Amino acid sequence: MKSSLTILKIGGAVLEDEAGLAEALGYFSGLSSPKILVHGGGRRASELSWALGIAPRMHEGRRITDAAALEVAVMVYAGLENKRIVAKLQALGCPAIGLSGADANIIQAEKRKAAEVDYGWVGDVRQVSTQALEGLMSAGLVPVCCAITHDGQGQLLNTNADTIAAELAICLAGSYELSLLYCFEQAGVMMDLQRPDSVLPVLRPDAYARHRQAGIIVAGMVPKLDNAFRALRAGAVRVAIGHLAALSSGQATELVL
Amino acid sequence: MKSSLTILKIGGAVLEDEAGLAEALGYFSGLSSPKILVHGGGRRASELSWALGIAPRMHEGRRITDAAALEVAVMVYAGLENKRIVAKLQALGCPAIGLSGADANIIQAEKRKAAEVDYGWVGDVRQVSTQALEGLMSAGLVPVCCAITHDGQGQLLNTNADTIAAELAICLAGSYELSLLYCFEQAGVMMDLQRPDSVLPVLRPDAYARHRQAGIIVAGMVPKLDNAFRALRAGAVRVAIGHLAALSSGQATELVL
Repeated sequence: MKSSLTILKIGGAVLEDEAGLAEALGYFSGLSSPKILVHGGGRRASELSWALGIAPRMHEGRRITDAAALEVAVMVYAGLENKRIVAKLQALGCPAIGLSGADANIIQAEKRKAAEVDYGWVGDVRQVSTQALEGLMSAGLVPVCCAITHDGQGQLLNTNADTIAAELAICLAGSYELSLLYCFEQAGVMMDLQRPDSVLPVLRPDAYARHRQAGIIVAGMVPKLDNAFRALRAGAVRVAIGHLAALSSGQATELVL
Repeated sequence: MKSSLTILKIGGAVLEDEAGLAEALGYFSGLSSPKILVHGGGRRASELSWALGIAPRMHEGRRITDAAALEVAVMVYAGLENKRIVAKLQALGCPAIGLSGADANIIQAEKRKAAEVDYGWVGDVRQVSTQALEGLMSAGLVPVCCAITHDGQGQLLNTNADTIAAELAICLAGSYELSLLYCFEQAGVMMDLQRPDSVLPVLRPDAYARHRQAGIIVAGMVPKLDNAFRALRAGAVRVAIGHLAALSSGQATELVL
């Protein structure tokens, strides 16, 4: 029998709110090991950009990463947010270890080729070292992964945190009973953002395609759900999306094939 | 017989110069394992402070760390510099893993009590987890430690990188034939900064006390050498200080008891 592994991804809005972050980390530290936390940090990165006089540039919810923006991303994701989370988890008795993709070479990526949009120093995941991750987890450590990868040639790259969570899930789904939980600011996938009762309890690929075509599921939710379905197709036993209360009470949106 | 372990500490000036950093990382990656790299990053932190409109505050070569300065230190040391170094080492085939003191709880510190000077969020090392470090090293990983620690209660702290290198050396000297190398911008401990030929080949505690009293060894060199002698007294078999060329050719200053 495979052992269970939970990957919890927490988004930028969760990180922004001290009480919400404390609650999410409390929940995470209470999960049985092995487990992995993946975090974003986009809002703080935007704030730091503005403070440095650099206007953040986005395209369809994804950051365009020039050299200055990459430095900001590395500082905020791998520095400020990652270490803040790791220190808080340690205080909760959770033996966290913060990782970028370069650390122990856990995630190598390839710089995205400039096409219609040049995303700059953005990496698409090429290879996850499950061996390195499993080595750390079997030593009793809890990986806390930020959204920075590297190309193996010394270049750091910015990679979407939802994608990182999905790629880890995809690579580890063969070895574990894997749950992938996307924790963000909404109760789940909603048919109407104004109506809290419009959360979909279950989302299947055909409904997703319809809602997407109808313009009900848009913008940042699309890559998030694309990632989530990829993980499900790769063998994750549970993929759910919602805010912490919804996820922990089983009322978030469950993705089903 | 104990196995050898080298701790190389590279200073801020080495990090500033791309060619110098490449050379230092090339040298480090060529050393036999186990080994640990410790780095500072003070100059970049000062630059970022200025860019954010925060004037860096120093007292006798040590940074005073208010809340904003701590965020800058975490971003630069644990983020920008640590990940840049780790990615470059990976490109050299060195299986680096970047660590703050919070990661795997490797270095706990205590906030320094405000006395004559209030250093703010500065930590004095309380405990090094040699078990965690040795676990990582025995898994074939090469720790790259930045100058950020934590208090075990969720608070990150800023700790001098020279001190971190010495504390690691002190805790590991019992288990290894330990060499501690301080790589900085000068050829070694110099009697006259204007005369390159004034490098002391050897420095003993009595001579150190005399030179210090005579005002020949001053400022930042004093805590560096205090740290270096502490490591030597704790059982390090070699403690040397100088720039890379001097260290690698055996022409740096060797500390001897």
